[in-house]
This record gives sequence, structure tokens and C-alpha cells, in this order.
Amino acid sequence: MTTRIDSLDTPIAVVDVAKMKSNIGSMQRQADSLGVRLRPHVKTTKCMQVVEEQIRAGAKGITVSTLKEAQAFFAQGVTDILYAVAMAPTKLPQALELRRAGCALIIVTDSVAGAKAIVEFGRANEHGFEVFIEIDSDHHRSGVRSNDPILVEIASILHQGGAVLKGVMTHAGESYKLNTLDALQEIAELERSECVKAAEAIRHAGLPCPEVSVGSTPTALSAVQLEGVTELRAGVYVFFDLVMHNVGVCTLDNLALSVLTTVIGHQPEKGWIITDSGWMAMSRDRGTQAQQRDYGYGVVCDENGSLIDGLLLRSANQEHGVASFEESTIVDVEQLYPIGTRLRVLPNHACATGAQYQAYEALKENGEIEHWPRVNGW
Amino acid sequence: MTTRIDSLDTPIAVVDVAKMKSNIGSMQRQADSLGVRLRPHVKTTKCMQVVEEQIRAGAKGITVSTLKEAQAFFAQGVTDILYAVAMAPTKLPQALELRRAGCALIIVTDSVAGAKAIVEFGRANEHGFEVFIEIDSDHHRSGVRSNDPILVEIASILHQGGAVLKGVMTHAGESYKLNTLDALQEIAELERSECVKAAEAIRHAGLPCPEVSVGSTPTALSAVQLEGVTELRAGVYVFFDLVMHNVGVCTLDNLALSVLTTVIGHQPEKGWIITDSGWMAMSRDRGTQAQQRDYGYGVVCDENGSLIDGLLLRSANQEHGVASFEESTIVDVEQLYPIGTRLRVLPNHACATGAQYQAYEALKENGEIEHWPRVNGW
Repeated sequence: MTTRIDSLDTPIAVVDVAKMKSNIGSMQRQADSLGVRLRPHVKTTKCMQVVEEQIRAGAKGITVSTLKEAQAFFAQGVTDILYAVAMAPTKLPQALELRRAGCALIIVTDSVAGAKAIVEFGRANEHGFEVFIEIDSDHHRSGVRSNDPILVEIASILHQGGAVLKGVMTHAGESYKLNTLDALQEIAELERSECVKAAEAIRHAGLPCPEVSVGSTPTALSAVQLEGVTELRAGVYVFFDLVMHNVGVCTLDNLALSVLTTVIGHQPEKGWIITDSGWMAMSRDRGTQAQQRDYGYGVVCDENGSLIDGLLLRSANQEHGVASFEESTIVDVEQLYPIGTRLRVLPNHACATGAQYQAYEALKENGEIEHWPRVNGW
Repeated sequence: MTTRIDSLDTPIAVVDVAKMKSNIGSMQRQADSLGVRLRPHVKTTKCMQVVEEQIRAGAKGITVSTLKEAQAFFAQGVTDILYAVAMAPTKLPQALELRRAGCALIIVTDSVAGAKAIVEFGRANEHGFEVFIEIDSDHHRSGVRSNDPILVEIASILHQGGAVLKGVMTHAGESYKLNTLDALQEIAELERSECVKAAEAIRHAGLPCPEVSVGSTPTALSAVQLEGVTELRAGVYVFFDLVMHNVGVCTLDNLALSVLTTVIGHQPEKGWIITDSGWMAMSRDRGTQAQQRDYGYGVVCDENGSLIDGLLLRSANQEHGVASFEESTIVDVEQLYPIGTRLRVLPNHACATGAQYQAYEALKENGEIEHWPRVNGW
């Protein structure tokens, strides 16, 4: 039996498969033209059907944010996996188990203590982990600076301790705060140059550093050249979202994820349309709040995904969303959007909204719906 | 085999069972002393073990935010269930199925269109739904005003259409924005008096209105008297959280939910402690942002739950949290909280943080851990 969207109850997370494929194709072409491998970060979707499409389009390996993702995608046949969060020593047994089962899992560290924990556990278990050292290219979060002497110390501990020093990686998370092409190109170049510098420092010390891995969706799409880089990582591009739209790396028409919702009430005097897409359906992510245009909890479209000009989901309780036009707009909301009307809401942040669901409902070009499960939790 | 907390990998959502029981007991005593039934809103925990404890303490019936919760708790033997979100016409078949299976499900409407949909569907299926009319007591969200002529029209449509007009209900969500006892007592009285007025208007029109149901955690704990009210609803009190602490209805010591996390790195020059409790583990809820004290993504405690003075989870990426002290505090974070250190983070909003997990890990007084599943999704 074929499922159609109108047979599904709300709220649900709908993926426009044509838009998703187009986004995947664009990023793959960008990586190809820059001469680097694309290793997509699958933390956005945590969904095998999406990953399959990325691999079909040319991706080489994947990046994950949890070992649970690594386990799930390895079980589905993906073997080249980068776990891009600094390794907690307590998680090493899980990583070892994956590697012994045949998964080419790469782990990450950015500290002397972390490197020592990896080599000590490796030695105790007669295993050489493959490791990336995380570089801090933009003062955003984790990582060691390219000119910090600790970098070579970490590399040395790993190499001499029997680990395989696979390379360096960085993520310029500060790029999410920008919104001009000049600034994005500048941070993309900073991400590249800092990571390449780090690789050179390690090589200069006589240590191996074959891989140089960089990326975020904004920098990946803005980079002019990636000399010295071997692979590009990016995640949210697969669906895009309102935050990425404000950054300037997609149009609203590229957004492939939306939440299908039903009108359940009104406050006609206030122009409020009450929906069943509260924050449980949208997530609490208010990523556009600090950007040039605050979209509330999302941009409202009709059931077919066409934008309704000026209609935003302006507030949200757990299972209630409140949509309205600008205060100056006089609209009979009860008449225009009666109870039972179905709408679609474009989210601020695709990673956070997706995480509110156990699965996506993938809307194909022929109108059929496929149920695509996610790998949630840890 | 008994599970202990130190055998579990992070991040996990830990429930301090002793604190939870104490919170449940306090709210039950409050309802008892006000002479009303307590019908807890289980949307906070969506967890059968918690609901069992609430019922053991004296709760009569439960409130749910999704029909999936209703289905799950009915399957576990709870029959008296209020679905406290205005009924979408498309969800009526699910409600009917539950009622025909023996669940005394009460549904809610606040509009003429909604009431008509209920009676039409009921008539077509020869079924009389039990219905609460939602009252807007504080201009917060949904509901009809107590003095709006539409109120009696809705009551009349339901009654004459063969539905069972069970009563009126309201939720003073604006109470979450307050933080003084005077203001809380005032809004609790507004919630009570508006809902009672609505019931009287319906009765005055010769229609039945046996039940008057009010509540939110802040108003329930602040109400001085509930004359005319028959039942009290509240949800988040079972765990409390930093938002409720800022409202002033609990102490930090009452908070029963925390996220157990591991230190995975540092930026020593900035005083940053990087943890594996990013926003996926904490939720994106920044509910304290607009309150008197902004706690970032949470208050950090040691592994045993003792507060670490001044240490907050100040920012979060998907799987990375960044904890730090005030800028003026000079601390050797690498020395004090080395990689592998386990910490616990008290969240802004227990409903949102819980929703990031499939289950709670319930820490009992004897140190044993029980795995308590949640009913997520729709």
C-alpha cells in the first residue's frame, strides 16, 4: 500500500526528496571542483536513506557525532567513519569494539591527556587506533592552535605510542555567525590555512600527517580554493534551514525539511492561528534570534510548501504553536486558515528539529511517502 | 545484575528518585489541602514509573499532551485521561478508538468549529465524546474568554449535539513569566476565578458543567484557595528545573532531573571545560534567558549532584557543551576537572531536556539505577 502525505497525522517531519537530492548534488560538485573528498557529517539527519543518497552522489566516508551513529551506519555497511568529537576515555571500549568488527573508525583528540588515554588503552589492548588531531582554527570551541607546541607533543605521543596519526581536522563554527560572502570566504581560508599549517608543523617534526580535513556548510560552500586539504566535511547542507538562509548560503526554496502541522484553533482578535506544531515538533532552537532576520520558530508555508508571505510561527508551547502575520496585517485568520487546515513550517535549525522525531516522512517527486528512521540517542 | 551510575556512559538523563518523590508528595499535599483532586500533567516525564508514583501518592487521573501518551498510559492501565490540547478533527478517530477500548478519554475544544467537528464525528459514529471547554484566563494562548458569548454557544452545540459537557479547564501559562509571591497568588486567583466564572455562565444557560479544572506548577503551588474548582493540573513540579527556580516555586535542591556528562577537553587559557553535554543532551531550551538569572544551558554540579559554585554550562553545540566560571574567577580547569571527570548539569526546562532522551536513568536512594522509558513522539 502506498502512503500519501494526506493520510499521515501531524506533526510530522517532511523531507522534500527532490530538494534534498539537489542540495546533495550541489555540495558534491563543490567538493569535486575544489579537488577534495567529501565526508558528510551525518549528525543532521542520522538517517541511512539520506546517507545512501550522499554516497551515491560521490561522498567518501561519513562523519558522525555519536558512537551510536557509528554503530548504526557500520551495521548498514558504511565502514569509513570519523567520530568527530574529542574522545572521552570511557568511550574507548566502544570504539575498539567497532574497529575489531572491521569498522575503519577514526577518533579525535586535542589534548595531551586525551592522546595519552588513547595510546594507553590501545597498548593495553594491543590496538593502534587511527586518530585525527583537532585544530582550533577560529577560537570557536575545541582544538589545539596550529602554532601551539602542544600540537607536536600530541602528535608525538600518538605516533610513538602506537596509534596511527591519520591527520588533522578542524571546524570553523564561527562561520555560522557571518552573513557576507567576503567574511565567509575569509573564514573558509582561515579554516584551510590554519589546518594546513598544523599539518605542516607535524610533518616538520618528522611525523606523519597524511590527511587534512576541514569544513562546515558555510565554509564549504564559500571556499575559493582548498590547497593542502584532502577532505571536506559538512552536514546541514543536506536539508539547509533558516539559519543557513540568514548566513546566505541557500535560498528559502532550498529548504528540504519542514514540519507538517494542523490548525487546531485561533485567537481571532489577536490574529493568532494555533497549530499542533509547538516546540516539541519544532525543537527549542531559536537560532535566527541573533541573526539579521528573526524567524521566530519558523516560516509558515501552505500544505504544498509554498511560502505564505509574512506568516511566522511566532511562539511555541510544548504542543501549541502560535502563527501570525505582522501586527499591521489585518486578516480573518479563522476564515483563511480554518481548523483542520494543514500547513508546513520551515525550521530554524534542521539538526535540532530532526532530533525531535524518530523518523522523517520522505515525500518523493511522485507524491509517495517513505518512512525514513533516524538514529537518536547515545 | 544491578546497574550503578558509574557503569553508564554519558550523556544520560538522571532522575534523583528521592527528590522526585518529595516533589510529588508536596504537590499532592497542596492539592489535598486545597480540597481538589490532582490530575498531573504527564507531558514532563511521559514515563510510566513516574506516573505510578504520582497515582500512589494520591493523583486521580492524568493529563496528556499527545494521543500517543494517552494510548501508552491506557495500555498500562490508566483509564481517566484528559488530552489537554484542542482537538484536531483529524485526530478524532484515534480518540474514538481509545474510548471504545474503555479509556475514559476527555477531549478539549475552544471554538464553534471545533465543537461542531466533535459532535458531527460523534453523531456519524454514534458516540458521545466527553468534552472540556478550554477557557482563556490570562490571554496566554488558547481558550475562550469567560465573558465571550461564544462560550455558551460552544457549550450548547456540544450538549445538544450529543456530547457530554464535562466541564471547563484553563492553564495560566503567563505564570511562568512571574517571580514574586504576590504576582503568583494574583494569577492563581485569576486562573481560578475566570474558570469558575466560565462554569457559572454555562450553568446559568441551563447547561451542565460539573468540572472546573485549573493549573500550572506556579499557580498550583501559589494558590491560597480554589473555591469552585474541582481539579488541579500541574506537570513540571515532579522534577522542577531552573526556570521554576527563577519563578520562585522551588529551590535548586528540589531539582530531580540532571544530565550526567563527561569532561572531554579544555581551552585552558579561556577557562573552558568542554563536556559531552551539548544541546542534544540538554535541549535547545534557554528558558532562563529572559528571566532574572540566566543560567546558560544549565548549572553544573559534581558527579554526586552537589552544586559547583559559579560553574555554568555557558554554551552548547550539538555534542559539545562549554562550561566555565565567571570570567574573573581564575581556575586551572585542566587540573580541577581533568578529562574523564563526570559532572551533572541541572537543566533550564525539565520537559524539553527529558524529550532529548528515550529513557531516564532513575537513581534510587540505595544507589541502584533503573531504566525508565519515555513515550516520545506522536
